[in-house]
Amino acid sequence: MTHSLETKSLAKCHGGIQGVYTHDSAACHCPMTFAVFVPPHRQGEKLPVLWYLSGLTCSHANVMEKGEYRKAASDFGVIVVCPDTSPRGDGVADVTDNWKIGCGAGFYVDATQAPWSSHYQMYSYVTAELPAIIAQHFPADMTRQGIFGHSMGGHGALISALKNPGRYRSCSAFAPIANPMNADWSSPALTAYLGPDAAAQRPYDPVALIKDGARLPELLVDQGLADPFLTDGLKPRLLEEACKAASIPLTLRLHDGYDHSYFFISTFMAEHIAWHATRLRA
Amino acid sequence: MTHSLETKSLAKCHGGIQGVYTHDSAACHCPMTFAVFVPPHRQGEKLPVLWYLSGLTCSHANVMEKGEYRKAASDFGVIVVCPDTSPRGDGVADVTDNWKIGCGAGFYVDATQAPWSSHYQMYSYVTAELPAIIAQHFPADMTRQGIFGHSMGGHGALISALKNPGRYRSCSAFAPIANPMNADWSSPALTAYLGPDAAAQRPYDPVALIKDGARLPELLVDQGLADPFLTDGLKPRLLEEACKAASIPLTLRLHDGYDHSYFFISTFMAEHIAWHATRLRA
Repeated sequence: MTHSLETKSLAKCHGGIQGVYTHDSAACHCPMTFAVFVPPHRQGEKLPVLWYLSGLTCSHANVMEKGEYRKAASDFGVIVVCPDTSPRGDGVADVTDNWKIGCGAGFYVDATQAPWSSHYQMYSYVTAELPAIIAQHFPADMTRQGIFGHSMGGHGALISALKNPGRYRSCSAFAPIANPMNADWSSPALTAYLGPDAAAQRPYDPVALIKDGARLPELLVDQGLADPFLTDGLKPRLLEEACKAASIPLTLRLHDGYDHSYFFISTFMAEHIAWHATRLRA
Repeated sequence: MTHSLETKSLAKCHGGIQGVYTHDSAACHCPMTFAVFVPPHRQGEKLPVLWYLSGLTCSHANVMEKGEYRKAASDFGVIVVCPDTSPRGDGVADVTDNWKIGCGAGFYVDATQAPWSSHYQMYSYVTAELPAIIAQHFPADMTRQGIFGHSMGGHGALISALKNPGRYRSCSAFAPIANPMNADWSSPALTAYLGPDAAAQRPYDPVALIKDGARLPELLVDQGLADPFLTDGLKPRLLEEACKAASIPLTLRLHDGYDHSYFFISTFMAEHIAWHATRLRA
């Protein structure tokens, strides 16, 4: 199967090419936009792929503009793919006065409940449909994939790696939502998308997945201590406890004074890319 | 005279603090917003100040979000100040359907013509009023100032340095408008702000200032060769010719494939900051 792609923009940056693309998504049943940075490379060379999943309210554009990932991606020779966070557009269900559900808040699940199930299939989109497109259109070595993300996207990176053992060689996160089914800002969306049964939500919850037996070879997490969502929403201590009980080596770095924004993310971005590159190029 | 300042936001980033501030501008007769990044430093230490002037359509926010300057500013211990590009708000003259004049297009001149002259005093604002505020509120060593900018802001940096010998120890630019009084996209604004007489415009035109005797110790300019404004708007060759005739040492670096955007600017930002820091810390 071939996937057609429309190029929205291309710009040279830090020696590579930052592109933005749209395509008709079969998983989400709507046009989807994503960003790909391809670093400088030799003709014919295939490069590792690092997936960055964004947080609530974001599209592909926030990290592309504010994430400061391109210099490190060029230095380490890694493709960086930045998907959108939800389906969008005419006919896509939304709650326009609530940023924690609907557009910009897909939570990287495959929704089973109406009206969400017809478009909100972000888990399939980021772990199956979009990887096939990346493999077809970019100089990507799909045997060397890593994944990371921020907040809701940290949750997305964790569940993608936990649910697909061996698929991603490396996984890290900035301020991930560790236990979204039990956090006030994410529980309503998971209930809307998946129904109220805990059994339906646990396969999309990092802490629950680990408790239920899913494993990662290791995990790097950065968290700002001035993050306003730290104690009620993100709950890194629950992730720490779950990793400890499951013998998953977790490097949890707590940073005094940093908040939840891209000012925090951009500060530690290059270190995350270096960390992934070490594992993707091993 | 003391200047009061309202802090709009503060965020830790790359070890320093990125702030956004507003104040009532005496020069522009309206509230003005600007961004300041203060890198980590010892208690009581005074740091060099690097001014970044932005291009058409921008506010303080574009470079703050996309400029990728904070890591280098922290590495080299330099304060970076990012002013807005024009007065804004109720009662400020504007042409809402033309991005080349009015709000976002102050061109760093002191307007003499109605209706612009009552608010559009950006030259006095960036070279006199705002420096006094920076000196008062930040750990700034005002004897060590450098200035740079992009496009219209490259023009602004050049005229600020050319018109104030000895004030700025270093000056550089990304894709500056070299000869705005003779470029299609800038000539109408200069004529509106300053009147049609060339004699009134020459003191705000980099190439004209150099031809009229103004000097710089040296100049660094980066220019993308895929910049759509290269030949009609920016005209770096005119700057090169003027510098050569005036024996101003110009380093003009032309970059294959780079456009006019922050993808271009961010690529070379760290090198500019390093270049300034060498001169500011000499």
